[in-house]
Amino acid sequence: MAPAEKAESDRPGEFALIEEIFAPLAAGSAGAFALRDDAALYRMEEGCETVLTVDAIVAGIHFLPDDPAESVARKLLRVSLSDLAAKGAVPKGYLLVTAWADDTTFDWIKRFAAGLAGDQKRYGVSLWGGDTVKTPGPLTLSLTAIGEVPIGGMIPRGGARPGDDLYVTGTLGDAALGLEVLKGRLSGLGRDEASWLVQRYREPEPRCSLGPRLRGLAHAALDVSDGLLADLGHICEVSGTGARIEKDKLPLSAAAQMALRQDGELFPLIAGGGDDYEILFAAPPEKGNEIEAAAGEASVRVTKIGRVTGPNEGVTLVDGAGRAIPLKQLGYSHF
Amino acid sequence: MAPAEKAESDRPGEFALIEEIFAPLAAGSAGAFALRDDAALYRMEEGCETVLTVDAIVAGIHFLPDDPAESVARKLLRVSLSDLAAKGAVPKGYLLVTAWADDTTFDWIKRFAAGLAGDQKRYGVSLWGGDTVKTPGPLTLSLTAIGEVPIGGMIPRGGARPGDDLYVTGTLGDAALGLEVLKGRLSGLGRDEASWLVQRYREPEPRCSLGPRLRGLAHAALDVSDGLLADLGHICEVSGTGARIEKDKLPLSAAAQMALRQDGELFPLIAGGGDDYEILFAAPPEKGNEIEAAAGEASVRVTKIGRVTGPNEGVTLVDGAGRAIPLKQLGYSHF
Repeated sequence: MAPAEKAESDRPGEFALIEEIFAPLAAGSAGAFALRDDAALYRMEEGCETVLTVDAIVAGIHFLPDDPAESVARKLLRVSLSDLAAKGAVPKGYLLVTAWADDTTFDWIKRFAAGLAGDQKRYGVSLWGGDTVKTPGPLTLSLTAIGEVPIGGMIPRGGARPGDDLYVTGTLGDAALGLEVLKGRLSGLGRDEASWLVQRYREPEPRCSLGPRLRGLAHAALDVSDGLLADLGHICEVSGTGARIEKDKLPLSAAAQMALRQDGELFPLIAGGGDDYEILFAAPPEKGNEIEAAAGEASVRVTKIGRVTGPNEGVTLVDGAGRAIPLKQLGYSHF
Repeated sequence: MAPAEKAESDRPGEFALIEEIFAPLAAGSAGAFALRDDAALYRMEEGCETVLTVDAIVAGIHFLPDDPAESVARKLLRVSLSDLAAKGAVPKGYLLVTAWADDTTFDWIKRFAAGLAGDQKRYGVSLWGGDTVKTPGPLTLSLTAIGEVPIGGMIPRGGARPGDDLYVTGTLGDAALGLEVLKGRLSGLGRDEASWLVQRYREPEPRCSLGPRLRGLAHAALDVSDGLLADLGHICEVSGTGARIEKDKLPLSAAAQMALRQDGELFPLIAGGGDDYEILFAAPPEKGNEIEAAAGEASVRVTKIGRVTGPNEGVTLVDGAGRAIPLKQLGYSHF
């Protein structure tokens, strides 16, 4: 669309940016037409369905203005790949919308594209199309990811059944703690632990190797983006179930354990902080061995953290003695 | 994604907005899961391919902050539907990203959704998914539209051949003139003409009824968003051809004719102004009758404006006597 007012900038124009910087990211896909057409063309594999997800991030809100450009690119892409993974989908391609801010430099854009290029190889996706605009506001990015599942294979949010075991991949709370580090609110950690947590905040690790292996095993799944308790609440709400999870079973990284030892008040960040991008899923107990095997094949840590309970029971967090921990006490006013 | 900093607003929260305002727009599509899952699921019709396009608009740049919310919604959706139409695709659904500004009111959002609801019925699409964030910058919206073509049926940009006739739908320049009206730079028109031009700027009419009928007839097509001459340049560049169009054949609305009579200097807005969202296409002369018939069936005006010429001949605009009009003279510095 032609802008109603032309803005000035020292970046190359829209067409030059697309040709120089973004077209190389589309080189792997015939249906992207080297970004020289108005739309992308995509032929799904036979017997498959398409899974689509879109996420937007705004500088100063979803990432910090001085986060490295490569990290911003990786986070943008990975957040959507994480959604696909949680649905059991194999990622195929993506569309990118960039709204450059007045102070977005050409160098920043080049590093952003380099971040995407690396992740394209890592996750087997390529750029299919997009749109580029300018904004007088903060840098805003959005990405539509396209994946595939065999027909009927998508793992929904709403399929959890009472008696299912609840699992989560990786470790919880690292990203929320990493954000605290970046904001200078978490000192006392070693440099390695601090920078590892920051890395977990900046560059989530979508569980693409595991997600498709959970098809036929998990009844319900999503990726933890709003925080474990909130997202578990989403599963329960849509599934019409409750859930009971054990505080002592929540998987913690060494860095998070160290932070918690220093300040037990940080626990709400573990169970409620966002940006984990781990898969939370419910599966029947008889699939336990297969899940363990799938986790091994995918080289992804999977931890059983509780189970799905009956309708209208809500989400309950229990301590080592099986006593319910009032969630309000943890600062979750909306529970 | 959890925001790094919480912003305050008097709008309902993200989840309430989705449930109250946007979920009803997804009611028509099972694969949207009432917007209660992490991704949308879509099964293509057999023998088809998917056509994907995405567009972003920013308040104050691509639309005016006081444009009615319903119009903004319609423009956002129609701009993408126009891309699909130009590719010969039948629209199916869309994903929506909204970055609400601090001053975006709940009322505005409701009217925005009402605009989408009306167009969903009109064009046979529904909302499949999306993301909602807040921005300290201007209201920013983006939309990914998904359509279908029979395998091999997409009309590319790059298929024009020397000797093809060049056609355009509807009339040209109305939107660019409408923007001039809104900016107070075009007086002297009657109120009806002025408001008709504004309407053409605010609410383009995607040629969805014609696009799919052009499959097998048109060699190349795109929708005119950057301006006729620029977009014709795109077809030529990708097709490796030149083009020659006749100034006197460019289809003008009565309002545009009146504006031009009052000020001939406005002509560059006809041939170069953006936001027309008409389909520009190239087709071999022997398809002329079929194209006429298709236009009649689709109730869309189609005008032959010139022809495709040999390689490296560039875009030439000629006057009634067949003399080339230097494009630089019209203010197109980039030709």
